[in-house]
Amino acid sequence: MKSKIITLLTDFGEEDWFVGSMKGVIASICPGARTVDITHRISPGDIRRGALILRCAYRYFPRGTVHLAVVDPGVGSDRAVLVVRGGGYIFVAPDNGLLSYVLTDLKEKAIFHAIREDLFRDEISDTFHGRDIFAPLAARLAGGLPAEKVGPPNSQPVILSTPVVRPTTDGYQLVEIIGMDRFGNCVTALAQNLPDQSPGSDHPSALQLTINDHCLHIPLVNSYAAVENGKLLAVWGSCGFLELAVNGGNAAQQLGLQVGDMVKVEFNS
Amino acid sequence: MKSKIITLLTDFGEEDWFVGSMKGVIASICPGARTVDITHRISPGDIRRGALILRCAYRYFPRGTVHLAVVDPGVGSDRAVLVVRGGGYIFVAPDNGLLSYVLTDLKEKAIFHAIREDLFRDEISDTFHGRDIFAPLAARLAGGLPAEKVGPPNSQPVILSTPVVRPTTDGYQLVEIIGMDRFGNCVTALAQNLPDQSPGSDHPSALQLTINDHCLHIPLVNSYAAVENGKLLAVWGSCGFLELAVNGGNAAQQLGLQVGDMVKVEFNS
Amino acid sequence: MKSKIITLLTDFGEEDWFVGSMKGVIASICPGARTVDITHRISPGDIRRGALILRCAYRYFPRGTVHLAVVDPGVGSDRAVLVVRGGGYIFVAPDNGLLSYVLTDLKEKAIFHAIREDLFRDEISDTFHGRDIFAPLAARLAGGLPAEKVGPPNSQPVILSTPVVRPTTDGYQLVEIIGMDRFGNCVTALAQNLPDQSPGSDHPSALQLTINDHCLHIPLVNSYAAVENGKLLAVWGSCGFLELAVNGGNAAQQLGLQVGDMVKVEFNS
Repeated sequence: MKSKIITLLTDFGEEDWFVGSMKGVIASICPGARTVDITHRISPGDIRRGALILRCAYRYFPRGTVHLAVVDPGVGSDRAVLVVRGGGYIFVAPDNGLLSYVLTDLKEKAIFHAIREDLFRDEISDTFHGRDIFAPLAARLAGGLPAEKVGPPNSQPVILSTPVVRPTTDGYQLVEIIGMDRFGNCVTALAQNLPDQSPGSDHPSALQLTINDHCLHIPLVNSYAAVENGKLLAVWGSCGFLELAVNGGNAAQQLGLQVGDMVKVEFNS
Repeated sequence: MKSKIITLLTDFGEEDWFVGSMKGVIASICPGARTVDITHRISPGDIRRGALILRCAYRYFPRGTVHLAVVDPGVGSDRAVLVVRGGGYIFVAPDNGLLSYVLTDLKEKAIFHAIREDLFRDEISDTFHGRDIFAPLAARLAGGLPAEKVGPPNSQPVILSTPVVRPTTDGYQLVEIIGMDRFGNCVTALAQNLPDQSPGSDHPSALQLTINDHCLHIPLVNSYAAVENGKLLAVWGSCGFLELAVNGGNAAQQLGLQVGDMVKVEFNS
Repeated sequence: MKSKIITLLTDFGEEDWFVGSMKGVIASICPGARTVDITHRISPGDIRRGALILRCAYRYFPRGTVHLAVVDPGVGSDRAVLVVRGGGYIFVAPDNGLLSYVLTDLKEKAIFHAIREDLFRDEISDTFHGRDIFAPLAARLAGGLPAEKVGPPNSQPVILSTPVVRPTTDGYQLVEIIGMDRFGNCVTALAQNLPDQSPGSDHPSALQLTINDHCLHIPLVNSYAAVENGKLLAVWGSCGFLELAVNGGNAAQQLGLQVGDMVKVEFNS
């Protein structure tokens, strides 16, 4: 029998006892489950960042994987607990928007409001639902509990506002920066496959990028190494979003961009 | 057959080859054991921090888990190697105080002084006992070696001084700050269940906190979200200690507190 | 049946979706493989550092382990993909020097140029070969694919320049600093077992260290704890290289040394 995988994505960091405790609870309830860390280094409370990372990672895991995500600034409040089944996966997370981009990405899904307290730990600390509610729930789901057993359907999960991708009157698209990676590559909200965001040309080879009225002409290539070292480039990144990068350098620093900034993009052939 | 778990807690960080080497040694000796990281980000040599994290995490793992902890500034000296059996767990660590808070927490325990060199690696580097002594020992214990086989009983393990919790003449309790977590929550030494530290009221709803003669009145609540964003609160934390926190903020920064600082606490109903 | 281990060493950090995606791909192709992180905190593009860490860690894993290393500033260019069999292990890495020190260390080895695209993911992003080429390849090798099936032999892998260890005319050895660890210990290129680098005395107990014409006489001991707290020492480190250290302190800071710096060493009995 294949062991089930439970992925973990949190803002708990790695310097405390939080992640270890969750893994201990999971191993106690579902000894056959294997935990795989996606990341624990979401900035405290940064739900939007957690939603993006989960959206970029989830689909590479085997069907049957349980994805457990806890970025939970409202722990102990009355925010609900979500269980989602879709795409062959199960997702467990607080109902605060953390699953937004996954939900957008999934064609078919069933969403449940987890309310059965017998599925949680007996003793619940209202400052650590990761250990006392989310981990036990994920462990039981990995152990075979059907998602619909956790509680009633939930038709109105909290959804984050969609990142901005909008045509402007002067023919550009206004595009939000939604992420930076470790290498300083800037991930934009412009997705490759959405027909309504299709570029002006079928095979664009460059784009005009405007940041604060400052205009740059940069090549649209297939890899960082396609331009000289130190040069700017645009590329459809490994998660399907347009990225701005510098070969061997740090585009975020070079362009002075931050998450949430807006840039204007026009494709050229 | 369930696979045995070996947890790892060290000050080795994640940027070097240290933790990987230990896991390789464990896998070589006990292929069925699964390693789970508690943390490797204890500050170099910070035994007290390691002792606290282990105390907060150990009990959430399944019985039979081997907890391996290596914060070992005296590596290569004549400090002893401890193996402890208690609470259904096995602990392996240098005899330098790292197990202090676990030993206090365990009602029944047997403590052994590991001296059998045939249980270690053949070649021992005196700068890396984590790889050459502790990891092989933990692997053999996970593989079924009874704890009492590692060496004679040890009745005098090194114990750290107890963190301060002391009534003062003016009716307060003087309490030491024993930890900060990633979110800036300040963990105090005041434990919820010790009868001799019981608060002045059966159901206190607030407390008076004095830091350097500066006096604050703050609510004692069940969760961070029970107060407005940005407001101070006190809460019995997920490890059973009184914590000072700021909803959505960083109490350590806001209060200017560090580990080892003393605060005065008086509970009010 | 023992599960196969795949170790991971990258410069991807832990804050993004990169490592998680690779582990998902591995679990999808070879469900029985267990992944073990060596480190993901190589500085972006620092091939030399990756080569050193892998060289220090690889031999502690069980025979049959697949070591997957991805520090790949040339991703998407025409740099080749290497598979190496040697020492009972399989290594998978870009052909950019990352395996240099392992290749030097292995007595017998077979090197292959992985070209079979049917072993990769169907869709390949030219910005993330870690997920789309290296991870699937490692998973198939862990699953039993013989190394020689990945492509033709490669007799000319890229090899980094050898770190400097050179006798000087004034009787010293000029030695390069090749690494710093978390504790500030400075790893030199001087290896213990190379006969041509044997010290001037059979049992040296001290050495004269010259940094920028500044001369220090420091003891050569077996452990950090062999000297007083705060004192400088030299020790044959746990990877077989001469290290400069400070007991309870940070030698890199105290000596002002960085990776790539040269020091002069003369052993004394």
